[in-house]
Amino acid sequence: MICNLRKVGIVSSGLTKFAKTEVSVESLMISSIKPIFDNTKNLSQTDIDVVLTSTNANEKYLASIVSELAGISPKISHSVESLCNSGTNCIVSAFSYISSGLADVALVTGAEKSNSPGLVLNWDKSRGQYRHPIYWSSLFTSSHMRKHGTKMEDLAYVSAKNHRNALDNPYSYFDRSYSFEEVMRSKNLTDNVRLLDCSMPCDGAASILLASEDVIQKFTEDPVWITGIGQRTLSAGFARSKNLSSMYSTSLASQDAYRMSHSSPSTIDVAEVHDAFSICEIMALEDLKLVEPGKAAEFVKNLHDTNNKKINPRGGLLGTGHPLGATGIAQTIESYQQLQGTAGKRQVEKAKTALIHNMSAAATSSTVLILQS
Amino acid sequence: MICNLRKVGIVSSGLTKFAKTEVSVESLMISSIKPIFDNTKNLSQTDIDVVLTSTNANEKYLASIVSELAGISPKISHSVESLCNSGTNCIVSAFSYISSGLADVALVTGAEKSNSPGLVLNWDKSRGQYRHPIYWSSLFTSSHMRKHGTKMEDLAYVSAKNHRNALDNPYSYFDRSYSFEEVMRSKNLTDNVRLLDCSMPCDGAASILLASEDVIQKFTEDPVWITGIGQRTLSAGFARSKNLSSMYSTSLASQDAYRMSHSSPSTIDVAEVHDAFSICEIMALEDLKLVEPGKAAEFVKNLHDTNNKKINPRGGLLGTGHPLGATGIAQTIESYQQLQGTAGKRQVEKAKTALIHNMSAAATSSTVLILQS
Repeated sequence: MICNLRKVGIVSSGLTKFAKTEVSVESLMISSIKPIFDNTKNLSQTDIDVVLTSTNANEKYLASIVSELAGISPKISHSVESLCNSGTNCIVSAFSYISSGLADVALVTGAEKSNSPGLVLNWDKSRGQYRHPIYWSSLFTSSHMRKHGTKMEDLAYVSAKNHRNALDNPYSYFDRSYSFEEVMRSKNLTDNVRLLDCSMPCDGAASILLASEDVIQKFTEDPVWITGIGQRTLSAGFARSKNLSSMYSTSLASQDAYRMSHSSPSTIDVAEVHDAFSICEIMALEDLKLVEPGKAAEFVKNLHDTNNKKINPRGGLLGTGHPLGATGIAQTIESYQQLQGTAGKRQVEKAKTALIHNMSAAATSSTVLILQS
Repeated sequence: MICNLRKVGIVSSGLTKFAKTEVSVESLMISSIKPIFDNTKNLSQTDIDVVLTSTNANEKYLASIVSELAGISPKISHSVESLCNSGTNCIVSAFSYISSGLADVALVTGAEKSNSPGLVLNWDKSRGQYRHPIYWSSLFTSSHMRKHGTKMEDLAYVSAKNHRNALDNPYSYFDRSYSFEEVMRSKNLTDNVRLLDCSMPCDGAASILLASEDVIQKFTEDPVWITGIGQRTLSAGFARSKNLSSMYSTSLASQDAYRMSHSSPSTIDVAEVHDAFSICEIMALEDLKLVEPGKAAEFVKNLHDTNNKKINPRGGLLGTGHPLGATGIAQTIESYQQLQGTAGKRQVEKAKTALIHNMSAAATSSTVLILQS
């Protein structure tokens, strides 16, 4: 089905520090857009054909508002929403505008407030009285424990590793890390989900500039290309999930992304996986086929013990915070910087191929992107 | 900039009756999707790669919810929002997914409730205490009157014509028409905007199925092609408009659409124009270059007097009602039916090329589509 895709690359990016603030969604977006104009050679507002906004906020006409505030008069502008994977959906939408030839340059900006209306999916009556995502993460955890013998200690290594990685991320919500022992001792919210097994909703914004292969050299000599895209929505309601010890939408999305980019799990040098809860990183590693089923817990403990940053070098959602509409874009920015070799203390050496995994609502939908330098 | 666009055609469509109801946005969408499954040969849920939802409602994860309710597991699903032109933005997004080769078949569904949060753009402080769109329509009207001598009678012909056209549209909000005399006598809301010069917010849904040239023959022998797309966002705030007697974003968008489709105003056989208020139809006809500047009022009176349905055959927003997220899709469905020759009593004879004009927030942004059979 893929025919004659025009190549689309990443030109530049910007972030705000993840925090709790009194700043509006549109102001957060503008703060993350400013570095793009500051740091991109030859870029002027008139170059930008598309402005897309990613958020769960209820603000209307946000892409036009942000365009006005940034002095841009785009051809195409609208918001994109799909709960927690709004960010990567927005990037894929921009990709398609460029790849199709309708546009050459697209600005994608995502932001969220800590009290986002996307935190709980009230529509999903299948969750019964347990509407909060902690509910499904607890069921995921007990199911994975039953099938693979996963232990609370395994979950603690995920959280401790990602909190430690986040210490080297200047945009992280936290100003300290949490050790394995601290995660183990943190407050139980359910019998198998502790406070430090949960990502923190917060304010934050992330922006990324994309361009077609035909014009990208004007703005950068060093682009990173989006070579693989896979997406799948299986349902909206949690109760439709057939197997709670794996995330099937992630598995399907990754197959398409690997195929499109002519890559495979063995070629992935660095990955951002959607660790909304500790169990999600373990499951995602298995569903993305980066690790054999049942082997992710041991793999993560080894990453923790050897200070290997291959998985979630920026600190993941657990370590960095989770501003819903910004998360997928922030993940993509980390991967972009890794492939550019500009990730500083977080740098994974010789990274040439990066994978981004972003999902929504108990993995009822997933997006997987693959980037190559 | 346009390169190697893969052709995208319309396969089928569905509508709900525009009304005031107690039905949810997602149920309205499903009601308008049902006719697509009923009436499209060889279509099954597994054919659909993309589900996009167009609305200003605050519901989250709506594209996944609608997918689940319709039994579809799409690759790509998300909401698109851009106030009143969400519908055509959603169609263009679907177009780009298909044209780029990321997808072959896309379902676009739009719906709105009469109390939509998109009715008033609270962000726009430039409107002062006058936040309601009636404010800018009144300024448009007085400006056009000053420049072109437009009269209250001219506006009444727009409304009376469109209300009469809507009588032949079974999905219209109104069950009666309003004559020129009734519009003239209707209540003044400002000194130059009467109640019957305003479109009516209402509940309604519209859905359309798009497919690539590579697969469309499986579903229809009689596709209509989207051959022209033009979009422009100039600002979000009303006060940025430099000339209140014309809609510059519409003019720019139409130029791009004509160029892309290798057509011109003289080749347009039938047009849907965004008559949110009576003055908007007059201004749009001039900005789309379907009529010389200052000549639209006379042109519309002639359409009224001769019962010519070339402009807004379904009754426009004035005659049909305006469920924001559905409107651009409903306009596109009318154009599709006109080119298929299935518009019944509304049919414009020998229509081969149709234009759709959809705009938001005092024409701070506009979308123009051109369809050809």
